[in-house]
Order: sequence, then C-alpha cells, then structure tokens
Amino acid sequence: MSSSVTRYRARVAYDGTDYYGFQRQLPAFPTVQGAIEDALAELNKQKPVTVLGAGRTDAGVHAVGQVIAFDLAWRHGAATLQRALNARLPRDISVEAVVEAPAAFHPRFDARRRRYAYTVLNTDVRRPEARHRSWHVRQTLDVVHMAHAAAYLVGRHDFATFGRPPQGENTVRDVYQASWRRQAEWLTFTIEANAFLQRMVRSIVGSLRLVGDGRWTVADFVDALNARDRSRAGEAAPPQGLCLASVLYENE
Amino acid sequence: MSSSVTRYRARVAYDGTDYYGFQRQLPAFPTVQGAIEDALAELNKQKPVTVLGAGRTDAGVHAVGQVIAFDLAWRHGAATLQRALNARLPRDISVEAVVEAPAAFHPRFDARRRRYAYTVLNTDVRRPEARHRSWHVRQTLDVVHMAHAAAYLVGRHDFATFGRPPQGENTVRDVYQASWRRQAEWLTFTIEANAFLQRMVRSIVGSLRLVGDGRWTVADFVDALNARDRSRAGEAAPPQGLCLASVLYENE
Repeated sequence: MSSSVTRYRARVAYDGTDYYGFQRQLPAFPTVQGAIEDALAELNKQKPVTVLGAGRTDAGVHAVGQVIAFDLAWRHGAATLQRALNARLPRDISVEAVVEAPAAFHPRFDARRRRYAYTVLNTDVRRPEARHRSWHVRQTLDVVHMAHAAAYLVGRHDFATFGRPPQGENTVRDVYQASWRRQAEWLTFTIEANAFLQRMVRSIVGSLRLVGDGRWTVADFVDALNARDRSRAGEAAPPQGLCLASVLYENE
Repeated sequence: MSSSVTRYRARVAYDGTDYYGFQRQLPAFPTVQGAIEDALAELNKQKPVTVLGAGRTDAGVHAVGQVIAFDLAWRHGAATLQRALNARLPRDISVEAVVEAPAAFHPRFDARRRRYAYTVLNTDVRRPEARHRSWHVRQTLDVVHMAHAAAYLVGRHDFATFGRPPQGENTVRDVYQASWRRQAEWLTFTIEANAFLQRMVRSIVGSLRLVGDGRWTVADFVDALNARDRSRAGEAAPPQGLCLASVLYENE
C-alpha cells in the first residue's frame, strides 16, 4: 500500500536566540531547519524529510513570517498536520499555517519580496526583557536623519557595500521600502526588497545608526552606498534585533 | 581613612527566565539577589554587600519594578552608582533608578502596596517570542466572566485558598485592585494588594482560568475563595507569565 506525497507550504515563526541560524548544519549545532526536519521525520515513520526555506536567517535572528516547503505523505489534512508539527516542535518554533502547494512550489526561488524588521531600543538603561529582541543603543538617535538616509536605499541599486551575494551572484537588488518609525524609545526599521545579500539588513542598520548618532551625515551614507565597497559599511548591527517579517509570492 | 556608608534604594528590572528566583540560595543556583550582591561586592573592594528586596519572586518570574536596598560606601553619587552597577550586572538584570534612602529604609517592611501583572496569550498557535513572558492558553477564555470573578477578590479577605503565609503569619490580605484586560489575543491580569501570600497570584490566575474556560462558574470561584482551603484552588498558573510591576511606599 502506498500513500501519495504532497508538497506542503507552511508559515513559521521562531525565536532564533538558541539556534545557529535557519539552515541545517552539523548535528551538534541546533538549527531551525534541523528542528523542523526532525519533527517531520517523526510524522514520516522516521524517514528523513527535507525542508526548503525562503530565507537563511543567521544565528540569533528571528522570524514571524518564514516560509517553508516540504513533501510528505499525510492523510489527515493540513490543519491536523499543523497541530501534529506544533506538538512535536520545541516551544521556540511554531507553525502558524499549513496549506497544500503545487508540487513545484519553492519558497526561495518563487519568493518575490522579503520584508525584514529591525528593532532598536534607544534608552539610557537597558531592558532585560528586550535583550533577545532588540539592539540597545544608549546614544539618542536622530530618527529623522536615519529615515532621510534610508530613503536613498529605495530603488534598484548595487548593494555591494552592504553585503556579499550568496554564490557569486550579482549584488544588485530592488528595494521597495526602507523606513524608520519611532514609538517612544523603540525604533523600528522596515525594509522590503526582492532579495537580500548576506548580512545586508544588519549592515545597513549598523550604517544608519552612524547617521543617527551624528558620526555620519546623510551624504556620508549615500557615498558609502555608491562606493559599492564592502569596507565602507558601518559595523553590522547585532543579530538579535532582526526579524524576518514576511515573504511575498506572485499575486500576493 | 574611612568613608561613610549610605543606604541606597534602587528600582530593578529583570528577566527571571534563567534565575532560581530573587532570593539568594546556594551558589550553584543563580539568583537575582546573588547577581546584584556580586556586582555590589565588586564596587566594595570585594567585601560582601547584603541586598534587601521588596518581593521574593519565584524562579522564572520577572520584575519591572522590584525595589531593593543596600548599604555602601560610595563617593561618586547615585547616578554613577547606577551606571557602575549596570556595567557589572548580567544583561537580564538592570537597575532602573538609584536614590539615597534613610538608613532605616527597608524595601519589604516599608512597602505599602505591591502590584503584579500576569500575561496570558490566548491563541490556538503559540508565539515563540512570547514563551518566556506569558502563559499560552489554547481554549478561548471568557474575559468578562474572569473579570467578574476577579472583582470578588477586592477587599479584605482571608486568602488561605490561594497561598501560604511566609512564616506562620495570617492569611488575611487587602486587595485594592484585581482586573482583566483583553487586547486582541493578549489577556493581562493586574492585581494590587498590601502584600501577597506565596504563590498567591499564580494560584488566583490558575483558578480564574477555570472560570474563563467554563469549568468553573463565578460562584464556584467565590466558593473556593470563601472556603479558605488551599486544596480548593485551581492549579497554579506557570511562573513565566508573572511580573512584579511595582512596589509602592508611604506617600507614593
């Protein structure tokens, strides 16, 4: 008796604090992909299941809208699959939705846009409860200058200053939105693009912070962007402020 | 040359996730009190400094408004003391304010009111980022019934059903406020009293949850309160949803 295999697509949230990033590594290094694959194997008579992910978040980076896909023979419907996965996953990973997908669906190659959010806590005294979810910056940041500089990111640019391409690809990306919002002592940077280079968001945030604290002018930031030179970026912002907010596909 | 000792009062926030509660225990068990005393000893030529706390929060319980006091010979002012402490404390503890206090000030005995907040995440699917700061309850809770039951807590009552007194004291406490608020899928219980019994807030929340999911009526809750019998309480809510919000003193 054989059961047919279906490709499933799922939206996944996780707290990346205790993981060496999304992508599976050696077994001694826990990863989000590894944890989900382990849970899926339990539902597949211990046969391995490969998980495809839309974005390879770094160690310590979070997600609320990661998208994954996998193939599984499962007879009990997508809603039951979601519950079965959540029952087997560690508490810092959750499956927010599961749907059947076309067999050719690929979460990374089919993705049209990714949105990331970066959170800065701009206070003199740190907040213990925020330490895994934000970058604590003591110097008062000028969010107007930071937003002004960020606006220069929008459009099609060569972002070589802010990151390396995955495998020798080019460094041109389309940025659709790049904005800062201040709510009391919380600053949130939102950036949406067709795709991102490695470390790109953290590198941009680290550079915009220099604009915010006055070490760079807006013109310095634009010069760094136009230089297409990795050595011109500010120090990358730490991972724990970064969150993969959503991944958008055709017709979404 | 001798320097005079001053009593300081400080407001402290912490994430209790990685601590065995506030109160110092054996050295193998990290506590908030122990971490603060270690930081103070560094500022006191390695001579031990005793920290007094307003509330003995349990393992896993958080605080944003814990109040402590200690005696220290320090010549550089309270603001510098705050910075020196924060530089030495682990990142899950922060000193939010330091002031000089009368030599007789005692954060526990002088406290007039304590306020706790308990957070429930009422969703079908858990939220990884909230796992250390809330109780995830899947069944939809009726916050109107819970608030109705909670209103019976206000006033002077014998709370023997909901906790044990610290050391053979009586179990009568004055509750000034006990209310529920719903914001989307977040339920927050706020309770203010002159003092609390051990496990009292968690025991009350665990019982109110039974009202919320329909296993108890409001009358069942009131009967349990009036029974003054520890065995009549619902199972205590888990620690990670609880936070010591503030401690109030005379003329505050």
